[in-house]
Parts: sequence; C-alpha cells; structure tokens
Amino acid sequence: VAKIKGFAEWLPEQQILQQKIVTSIRDTFELYGFTPLQTRSIELISDLTDQGETDKEIYGVHRLTDESEVNFDWGLHYDLTVPFARYVSENRGKILFPYRRYQIQQAWRGERPQLGRFREFIQADADVVAEGELDLRYDAEILLMFQKLLFDLPIPKVQLQVNNRKLLQGFYEGQGIAEVIPVLRAIDKMPKIGEGGVEEILTGLNLSKQQIENCIGITKVSANGSTGLKQLSDFSIDNLQFSEGIEELGRVLDQVNELADQDSVVAGLHIARGFDYYTGTVAETIFPDYEQVGSICSGGRYDNLISAGSKPIPGVGFSIGVSRLLAYCFHLEILEASKKSTAEVFVAVNSEQDRNNSNKVAAALRSRGIATLVSDSSAAFGKQIKIAEKMGIKYVWFLNEGSSDEIKDLEARSQTECDVDTWMPKTDI
Amino acid sequence: VAKIKGFAEWLPEQQILQQKIVTSIRDTFELYGFTPLQTRSIELISDLTDQGETDKEIYGVHRLTDESEVNFDWGLHYDLTVPFARYVSENRGKILFPYRRYQIQQAWRGERPQLGRFREFIQADADVVAEGELDLRYDAEILLMFQKLLFDLPIPKVQLQVNNRKLLQGFYEGQGIAEVIPVLRAIDKMPKIGEGGVEEILTGLNLSKQQIENCIGITKVSANGSTGLKQLSDFSIDNLQFSEGIEELGRVLDQVNELADQDSVVAGLHIARGFDYYTGTVAETIFPDYEQVGSICSGGRYDNLISAGSKPIPGVGFSIGVSRLLAYCFHLEILEASKKSTAEVFVAVNSEQDRNNSNKVAAALRSRGIATLVSDSSAAFGKQIKIAEKMGIKYVWFLNEGSSDEIKDLEARSQTECDVDTWMPKTDI
Repeated sequence: VAKIKGFAEWLPEQQILQQKIVTSIRDTFELYGFTPLQTRSIELISDLTDQGETDKEIYGVHRLTDESEVNFDWGLHYDLTVPFARYVSENRGKILFPYRRYQIQQAWRGERPQLGRFREFIQADADVVAEGELDLRYDAEILLMFQKLLFDLPIPKVQLQVNNRKLLQGFYEGQGIAEVIPVLRAIDKMPKIGEGGVEEILTGLNLSKQQIENCIGITKVSANGSTGLKQLSDFSIDNLQFSEGIEELGRVLDQVNELADQDSVVAGLHIARGFDYYTGTVAETIFPDYEQVGSICSGGRYDNLISAGSKPIPGVGFSIGVSRLLAYCFHLEILEASKKSTAEVFVAVNSEQDRNNSNKVAAALRSRGIATLVSDSSAAFGKQIKIAEKMGIKYVWFLNEGSSDEIKDLEARSQTECDVDTWMPKTDI
Repeated sequence: VAKIKGFAEWLPEQQILQQKIVTSIRDTFELYGFTPLQTRSIELISDLTDQGETDKEIYGVHRLTDESEVNFDWGLHYDLTVPFARYVSENRGKILFPYRRYQIQQAWRGERPQLGRFREFIQADADVVAEGELDLRYDAEILLMFQKLLFDLPIPKVQLQVNNRKLLQGFYEGQGIAEVIPVLRAIDKMPKIGEGGVEEILTGLNLSKQQIENCIGITKVSANGSTGLKQLSDFSIDNLQFSEGIEELGRVLDQVNELADQDSVVAGLHIARGFDYYTGTVAETIFPDYEQVGSICSGGRYDNLISAGSKPIPGVGFSIGVSRLLAYCFHLEILEASKKSTAEVFVAVNSEQDRNNSNKVAAALRSRGIATLVSDSSAAFGKQIKIAEKMGIKYVWFLNEGSSDEIKDLEARSQTECDVDTWMPKTDI
C-alpha cells in the first residue's frame, strides 16, 4: 500500500523507543546548558548549494496552486548545519555568544534508500559558536557531552574516534604530496575497503611506496592522549600544520579523558570526514561490537563556515543520525520494541456501570504524575490482564468494592494491596 | 536578510519557551497513555486532496537533480490528520485498537502570512481510533485530557466550547432549511462578524425571519451538561438527529464535568468547524480574557474519515496550534521569554588555570541531573554574575580554595555554603 519509498515510519512500539531516545538526547543536551533551536525546514536553494555540496540530492518545494508565478528557489534542508549557520548570521545581534544550541529535526535527501539511509530522517545536532575566537576547550566540552549522551542511550558501547584536519593536511604536505583531498578521501574509506583497497587507490594517485607506507602507517597509531601521540614523531615529518594538529588533538583528548572513560574517546587517525568546511577537530563513532553499523555520530570544528559582518564565527559541533541509529538497532535486534503503550498502570474495569470509579483512580494517579490507562474493555479480568500484557504495561490496578484496591505486578507476578494516594511504581534505574 | 517570508523562527529565549510548552503537552499526552507517532512529512498529493480540501495551498515537493523524470505527485502535509489516517490504514493489521496516538510535528500551508498564521507551523494532535465502533465516552476522555493539558500550560485560562454536528444538522433540517452547509458556515463566523453580520448572510440565504431568529437564538443557549441543554426544547423542533445530538452532547459534557472544572468545558452551540469530515462532537477553545486570539485547540469526532478493508475506523481527536499559540503569547506579551539558557546553575571560574576544577563541579552536578553551565569567562566575579543574570540562570556557584564552596541565589539575593554532592535547586511548583 505504501506508495512512497525510502521513508521510515515506525510501528507504534518502535515510535515509543524513538521518542525515548530523542528525549534522552534532549535531556543530555539541556543538562550541559545547550538551548533548543527549531529552524524552518525550507531554505533558499542558493543557501543550500553554497557549501559546494551539490551531491546532496536536494528536494525543491513549490506552490501547487501558484502556477502563474512558479517559485522554484526553495528547497528542504539536507542537514541542520546549513540552517543553523543561516540562523546565526541572521540573528547575530540578538544572540548571546558563545551560543550553545541543540537541534533535533528532520532533514531530507533524495538518496537511493538503503538500510539506515532514508529520504527523510531525524538528526540531533549540538554546536557551540562564538564571535571572533572559540577556544579549543570547546572541542573537548562538546566531545565529552556526546560521550555522555551516547553512554546514556540504551545502545551497545560506542567509541568516539577523534582526528584533526591540520594533522592530516600537514602529514601529507610534509611528505610532498601536492593533492591532499583525493588522498584524504581514500584514507577515509579504510574501514570500508580495507588496507588493500586504500593502497590500490593511493598507487593510482602516483604516491611513492614510502608515501603509501606512511599514509597507511599513520592510521595504525593508537592513542588516547598527548602521550600516545608522541609516536607520530617516528614519521620524521617537519611541517608546522602537522605539529599544530598533533598539539591540538593531544590537548582535546587529554581534556576529554580527564573526565571520560579511558577508552571511549580515542584518536582515529584515518578519519577525515567528507565535508570541506572542517578546519581542525573531526570525529566519528564506531560500535566496537557491531562494526557494520558505521558512524552514527560525527562532526568537527569549522572556523570559516559562518561569516556575517566583519568578525568570523567559528564553531564546533556534532550530529547524531537518530533514524539511522534506530534502523540498525531494529534490524540487528539490538533494541527490542515491546511496549505498545506509554502507560505504567492499566486500571481494570469491573463493569461498564462501574467504569467511572476506574476513571477516578486514573485521575488520581495521573495527578501524581503516573501515566495511566483505563481498560477499554470490561470483560473478565483474565482478558483484561492479557490486553495489559500485550500492551507491555507492567501494573494492573483492581478496584475492590468495600475493601482495599489491589495492584498486580505482571513482571514480578505478585499482587498487593494499594492506595491511590500513596502507591508508586518501582522505578527502573 | 531573511528572504523567505511567513516562517516563524523564534529567538533562543523564545525557543526555550516553545520547547517547554511542547514538552508539557507531550507529558500530558503520555500521562493519559497516548503513544507518540511521527509520520513522514511527504504525502501523495492525491491523498492530500482526497478530503476535498483543495484550498489548503499545498506545497509540492520535487527532486532538483531529477529533471528527466520530474516527479510532481508529492506534497508536504498541511495537517496531521490526513497522514494519521493514511498511517492507520496502512498499518491496521499491526496496530492494537483502540489506538491512542499523539503527534507533534510541523505542517505546511502556502497561506498569506499574518499574526499567528505561518507557512510552516507546529501542531500537537491527539486522537483515538478503533475498529468497528468507538463509544461516545472517548469523546469525553479526550476532551478531559485536552482540558488538563491546556490548564497545565503557562497560559491564561482557556475554555473548551463543545457542540455536536448532529444537533446542528437536525436543528436546521427540523426547521425545513434545505441547504445546511452555508448556514453552518455563517453561524461559525459569529465570534468574528457578530450577530448583525450573521443575520445579513442568513437573510441573503433566503431564510425566514423565524428561522434566522432560531439560528441566532440557539447560539445563545449556555449549558455545561444535559440539564442545561433541556432549554433546547423551547425551540420545539421535532427531528431525530437533533434529539440524538442533544443526547450525545449532554452525555459528553456530563462525563467531562464530573472530573473537570465546572466552567472550563461548556456547550458552544455556534461551533460547526470547517472540515466536512466531522460527524458528531466538535469543539474549539476561547481565551475568555483575550477574545481576539481565537481558537488554539479544536477538533472533533470523525466516523467516516478512515476507511480501509471492510470495517470502518471511527475516531475522535483534537489539535493544538503550537506556533499560533506562541505567536499570540509573544505578541500580547502573555509569555515573557527571559531565560536564554536551559542551565539551572552557572559555575564561576576563578582563573583559566583553575577552570578544570569548575568543570569537575559541573560534572558532579550534572551526574545528579542538575543542568549546569561553566562560565565561558574567567573575568572578575561581578562580570561573571552579570553574564549569568543576562542568561537568566538563577544560581551561581563559587569554588573556594581551602574552604566550602558557596552558591549565590540571584533571585533571593542570598549566598550560602554548598556541597557538590548534596546541594539541590529549589523547585518551582
């Protein structure tokens, strides 16, 4: 029946999980003092193509009824960075800098649909931007926040791999490689095509044996701070950018790892990131236990992306692909969508005549913040319990005329007396 | 600089309020056991125009790069009811009925922009649908939920005015008025054009003096339950639909007002609602203290909107215009957007050398769920306090070397000793 392909529309039980994940992400952003932003979905196509990203398969938007004056200069945004940059430029006089914003919205790309890749998808971005200068400590702050955020999600262990554009650029230039971009692109493919594949591309680019050896060698260096990065002196490369990149990456990793788990944020010297606008720190994620998933959270530092007025507005930010993450979690059965209701308590109904008493119990529980559903059916209790089970609701409340109410815990298979003004669900920690 | 008109993009402090309102709405929906749904933004244009609503100024969506195979049968949805109806039809075999869903998403209409009317706007909908039959008590359940929801928002008192399509239809037919729709439309305009304006239109429709008197007379009947509706017998109209409508409206109001405030949900016998698909209960809101705002929440019962397979899928639901509500609240200065940060605590920094100690305080507070921001500046404390004030953060944390930390409450203008493992902000109730 679905006549439009490439769009994710989860089932009700999956929608509950999606909402849970979005709420968890939002809570972490706010915990770190990032403020919400919702920009319009529609941008001028000229603004969308400004970043030289013409391969984004933009969707245009036009008025159906306005054929006389057909307006073909609007498009749906393909990420949340371009709208954010425009919003900051437009409102810079009214924004307090440094401006920490998060943004959880859909984006659209006319790509060929495949596992984890949709034509409409939800992204969760957070960025800090400042006027004039943005200290390197913001790179660490935001990496730490994403580390915490990923750790708090109900997903397998995620590792953040960090690199620095200056380090890579200097590394190649220092070896006399003139055209850096195609080499960067080749190295970036390492996790997908392996060492042999990369070697083949680099040979095709006319790199010398020693250059190729170095280019592949650097991706094998592992480090989680400035101490580990000292190994890079083995390459004996004398280049200012290279040293600057090592220094920056070392500082960022040291700052992060003073507060984070030692192996959740590490150097990943193969990471280049596709976007041209990154100027320093870049990062991606892997699931060590599910390598096929690829990166679900990535981003970096952009010193020259936002320009308005005389002062530059440097920034650093990361983005989580929520739809992509969910698609893999459902496909690999990492997440099990079992709850079909947001309610914690299911109030049984003795009979249709008695329904209003159940409504009153529900009202009392809700007034204390306990999500409650009254049974739609007044059939035999056994049948009502089955419905609650099917919906994934843990507690069933029974009203007893003349004696105390009782609550059945469907997981613990226990039934106890309860009072509408004091009973509380056990919270999962 | 903004080259696209008719789109709301709030400032950071307004975005915080928008998020607060959306979260409050979501929390209430979930408290009542409604589950989240996010549908795709894009529908087949044929599905969008199916409801005979051709005046919705639909935006078409097309692939920019795909000129050879230009695809002009996609459009952005103009409400959340049509996508919901399609989703239910497509997934009916996988959904547990009665299905209670809420949906908070943007919608798009190419209308002429004006105060409270945007080309992209956020709506918050909640509906219940069932297979076969949907008892009238669901109309009451959902009205009660919206009453609670509106009451919990930080906005002025809202009144829900309820009517019933059968009641109106029968009332007109019972008087021998053949063409009911234009009369409904005229009556629906009462709050905007007044009694005189309605009288003029009805005269133009060739209604008799007595018919006009009745049509205007019924809108003046006030009632909050079946008892009050007994006044309708004064019109001496003998029509089955009319009696059925009175009976339905009375039952809904009685059920609602058994649990709600007596004057927050009342009969509004002038309300017809524009959409043709309503078949019974219809409702709108007014702000008694801000009549110019118009309805910000409306909806009703639709027994024939969703059809798939052999069984009908009747439903009842309401929708809040979040963007519209915010536009009025900002315009009338009902809501004051003063907080520029989501943080509750602002940790002062003694010096750049000491910044890491402030970071550690922030990490400890965040680990206990307290939203915290570390000062971007290490300037004199007076200056740091000014920044916190400007951001609307209530508490400033000071680290004292060798003695206890202190916290300054910028509202109460008090400063006390505090401990990072036990201190809690005072919660506003």
